[in-house]
Amino acid sequence: MNIITTADEMRAWSFAQRRAERSIGFVPTMGALHEGHASLMRAAAERDGAAVASIFVNPTQFAPNEDYSQYPRTFDADCALADRSGVHTIYVPHAKAMYSEGYSTYVNVERVSEGLCGKSRPQFFRGVATVVTKLFNAVQPDRAYFAQKDAHQCAVIRRMTRDLDFPIEIVEMPIVREADGLAMSSRNRYLNPEERTRAVCLSRGLFKARTLMESGERVAAAIIAAARDELKDVEVDYVELVAADTFTPVARVEGAVTLVVAAWVGKARLIDNIKFEDCNA
Amino acid sequence: MNIITTADEMRAWSFAQRRAERSIGFVPTMGALHEGHASLMRAAAERDGAAVASIFVNPTQFAPNEDYSQYPRTFDADCALADRSGVHTIYVPHAKAMYSEGYSTYVNVERVSEGLCGKSRPQFFRGVATVVTKLFNAVQPDRAYFAQKDAHQCAVIRRMTRDLDFPIEIVEMPIVREADGLAMSSRNRYLNPEERTRAVCLSRGLFKARTLMESGERVAAAIIAAARDELKDVEVDYVELVAADTFTPVARVEGAVTLVVAAWVGKARLIDNIKFEDCNA
Repeated sequence: MNIITTADEMRAWSFAQRRAERSIGFVPTMGALHEGHASLMRAAAERDGAAVASIFVNPTQFAPNEDYSQYPRTFDADCALADRSGVHTIYVPHAKAMYSEGYSTYVNVERVSEGLCGKSRPQFFRGVATVVTKLFNAVQPDRAYFAQKDAHQCAVIRRMTRDLDFPIEIVEMPIVREADGLAMSSRNRYLNPEERTRAVCLSRGLFKARTLMESGERVAAAIIAAARDELKDVEVDYVELVAADTFTPVARVEGAVTLVVAAWVGKARLIDNIKFEDCNA
Repeated sequence: MNIITTADEMRAWSFAQRRAERSIGFVPTMGALHEGHASLMRAAAERDGAAVASIFVNPTQFAPNEDYSQYPRTFDADCALADRSGVHTIYVPHAKAMYSEGYSTYVNVERVSEGLCGKSRPQFFRGVATVVTKLFNAVQPDRAYFAQKDAHQCAVIRRMTRDLDFPIEIVEMPIVREADGLAMSSRNRYLNPEERTRAVCLSRGLFKARTLMESGERVAAAIIAAARDELKDVEVDYVELVAADTFTPVARVEGAVTLVVAAWVGKARLIDNIKFEDCNA
């Protein structure tokens, strides 16, 4: 495994790939890798001539009361999974180098960052947009792979990439689920067996709502109520039907929408979503 | 003259330079070019294998009540001056492409952007940091040349470049002055003959304060008072002694400091500064 720890070395690697006419596929992660990440890494390894993943638990996207210090760090297992997924180069910058003394610069994506997780976690998208800008400048990829699991984050990154003229294609890969439907997430490790059983209600609620949309329901309130009906045993943060590109709530299904849910199950805050497009509209 | 208007074409040009092993020197401007800009362009043309200037009057750094629409646009003369200065490629993006519908992303450099022009013009440094990020992503230069005339802006850009991991060296070039001391500025065009005569008091105040520092004065209040003494016939926005790197006010000269002044002369808001370093401290 080729482990790179500084932005300068990272750029030197990317420059060498480009010289050799290999496109660069990039998978930014916070580590604690699972099959969801593996699907992104396999896509990068298959599509691009050179693939690199980053592992960086980014402090600026956590609030002081959140799980930054407890976030799972599983570096050796992460390297093994990356290797099996066809990614043999890992960028692992140090937090002190990423945010050195006097650090002052933040990237804000207005409007699309507001609402949903942006409301529950006001520092979150600013931290994400900032660290992704820094990672993009270090890696200089042709394509960056993100998970639909973090659909709101994908919308923010897509907007930022276009607005700031990064010459990078954002690829959004489908959610990978456990056999019972639970969306894979690094934070699933926080769940004890009883919570793990309860957590499946997030996807069950979403699937029920999708069935309703497929049968013709177009009113957001009815669709949301169907999903909420399954969420009685968890602490719901939000269930919302939003436009797929702007992530603003909609009253009716029109065009492409995303049904998003966030809920606390024990000490784990889990998110999940499904996309739906009314092709007859 | 090679005129480039889109980010994609700009990157293709830069890629070709890099392939030919030429370093890229970049001079971002708002046009209305004068000898100050010419000194930056000559430096880029001399030091780098390939030099490019941009001309873009950036709407996001102007407040609604400011001079965006009146800002002088002198494209043909600008091209001629660039050509004489050794710069034969100009990037001239369209405002509608730079800020298309739904544009939402802004780069904020906290702390160093506060105070001075950041106080008088609250949107200014956010607009500058955002457009420079976009221009850097389009041009992808090795070095970018800025004028000490805009010393506070240089400090903001330097901080941003380091924080966001842009692999770009920021070069700050000395102020170019008219024979009587007035710092060259595109906004000097706003001055009528009577105002032009009065405007020289900015540099006269700075030079007097420098003489005082050279003679051993270290107390900021005394140095500022000496400069202010010359500024009675103009409407002063601020006169401040600040640390050269952070642009925070200092009470005494210690290490490298910048004495900065902003004042209205008629409808022109002019800025000027001098740097001073206490080498015995």
